[in-house]
Amino acid sequence: MSRPSAAITGVHAFLPEKILSNADLERMVDTNDEWIQSRTGIRERRLLGKGLGTSDMAAPAIEKLLKKTNTPAESIDLIICATVTPDMPFPATANLIAHKLGIACAGFDIGAACSGFLYALTTGAKFIESETYKKVIVVGADKMSAIIDYQDRNTCVLFGDGAGAVLLEPNYEGVGIMDSILCADGAGAAHLHMKAGGSVKPASHETVDAREHYAFQDGRTVFKFAVTKMAEVAHQIMEKNQLSADDVKYLVPHQANKRIIDATAKRMGVSEDKVMLNIQKYGNTTAGTIPICLWEWEKELKKGDNLILAAFGGGFTWGSVYLKWAYDGEA
Amino acid sequence: MSRPSAAITGVHAFLPEKILSNADLERMVDTNDEWIQSRTGIRERRLLGKGLGTSDMAAPAIEKLLKKTNTPAESIDLIICATVTPDMPFPATANLIAHKLGIACAGFDIGAACSGFLYALTTGAKFIESETYKKVIVVGADKMSAIIDYQDRNTCVLFGDGAGAVLLEPNYEGVGIMDSILCADGAGAAHLHMKAGGSVKPASHETVDAREHYAFQDGRTVFKFAVTKMAEVAHQIMEKNQLSADDVKYLVPHQANKRIIDATAKRMGVSEDKVMLNIQKYGNTTAGTIPICLWEWEKELKKGDNLILAAFGGGFTWGSVYLKWAYDGEA
Repeated sequence: MSRPSAAITGVHAFLPEKILSNADLERMVDTNDEWIQSRTGIRERRLLGKGLGTSDMAAPAIEKLLKKTNTPAESIDLIICATVTPDMPFPATANLIAHKLGIACAGFDIGAACSGFLYALTTGAKFIESETYKKVIVVGADKMSAIIDYQDRNTCVLFGDGAGAVLLEPNYEGVGIMDSILCADGAGAAHLHMKAGGSVKPASHETVDAREHYAFQDGRTVFKFAVTKMAEVAHQIMEKNQLSADDVKYLVPHQANKRIIDATAKRMGVSEDKVMLNIQKYGNTTAGTIPICLWEWEKELKKGDNLILAAFGGGFTWGSVYLKWAYDGEA
Repeated sequence: MSRPSAAITGVHAFLPEKILSNADLERMVDTNDEWIQSRTGIRERRLLGKGLGTSDMAAPAIEKLLKKTNTPAESIDLIICATVTPDMPFPATANLIAHKLGIACAGFDIGAACSGFLYALTTGAKFIESETYKKVIVVGADKMSAIIDYQDRNTCVLFGDGAGAVLLEPNYEGVGIMDSILCADGAGAAHLHMKAGGSVKPASHETVDAREHYAFQDGRTVFKFAVTKMAEVAHQIMEKNQLSADDVKYLVPHQANKRIIDATAKRMGVSEDKVMLNIQKYGNTTAGTIPICLWEWEKELKKGDNLILAAFGGGFTWGSVYLKWAYDGEA
């Protein structure tokens, strides 16, 4: 028997109910709805409550995913959680999620910032392709509000909280994850990072006072790189797999900024109606964006549809995944 | 052609020069050398200087690994860094390491606490076994001194700083990583964790004052689970692969506590001379322990030697890897 590919056989998401609108932000920092919408495409984002962590979004997303796919929790072999906002520095949020699901399966976290879901999806696929495991959950989840400075108008308008999870299973029918291109360049760290709370600069009164436990972004530089690299890698995976724009059913882009997404679609030659876009509702949920999109568009998708996933983010990390969707309509 | 296995084709480590001895600790907290040695087997541990991070140990370890294996840095496809003490919460330490090596390759961090190296080694192997990549670096590195409370005599005697890295390459001669068993149980989180600095409890003056940015361990419970689970999983991988104690050249245990290691060796039926043990010199370097052992014993190893790697740690996570060593003497 030939090797299996790893197919997404279900997807679900969780968004907190509480909404933070542009109008709310106008009352918190010197900004306005028109500026935010024209620069980023964002109208509102969701916020998880205080005292809750990333696992409190990931666990309910997976619970519903298991239910809709009729998958017993006990049959899960591995949970990979992509996040930059783990519940705690350790143990892994994947372990806490499993515990909330009432199971004790292998699990680990992957850190690759805004490209975390693509890195985790590719990694999860390897465990299927190598026939190590049969059921792998990949969840991208971030409580960005835990690391956003709501006094910094440059970053606080961009991010929101959310989680999305997919189930990966072996497939022998030629659908599933076909190819991945993963890239990184640590030179980008200077432009997008979180200064304190790691081993270089552990938490102290000084780091708290200096507001160094928040995401820092040199927006102009990040935008410049993102707009180039995300478009490049999406185009590259199309060329590598001899896909024309007509072959592509949807671009599933990381939702950081509408202008970056537009540039990527343009470089790929795909029209606006082929681009999954929900940034206006949720902002940038970091590792959550791509699976949340897949969940919202699930009903539209048909078996065999060619999807191009693309992301860019902290690291810098960026990448693209080409997959053939594995089922019709809702799982 | 049949599928490749993933073989370790070189190993190197980095230990900071500065030594923290039991005598030093006697002057810092209410403890003594005899108590520490009899309970843990540790005599001294290494400390990395302030302002430096985990990447400052990982990068030099990899630099020497590349040199001794005549591997051009540019040929590396992927760096996976297992750590609970990333330089910063994001970007990934793997990206920072690559940048220090002068390259820009794919990279991400894996969080699975003290079992991090086994999880990362298994993950790296999947990228080789699936023929995705040809050269993967797996580095286990932790600056534990950044998250240790040197006023807490129960934990400060246990941990040290260090890094170890291996190069993984495809092998078609029947050596390399033969099998892995990865386990986790999030119920263990209550007994071994770091309270603050994640999304549940971001850094604040209160968390700093409450000393919540340090590793917390309920030693008795962790010991009880570790001693059972690490022995069980090491025995399980032997049975699964029909290995007798005579077939095993070395047990390569995570170095958390000599008594846990002794119990594991006993359950496997292997004698003391077959156990890699350097806890007396370095303490528990978390993700660093296993590759540091491999590096110190590299000269003794011969192609085809059967090694059993085993670990237990925060999560709880635990696991075992069975590998056939791929070369004679120093790489």
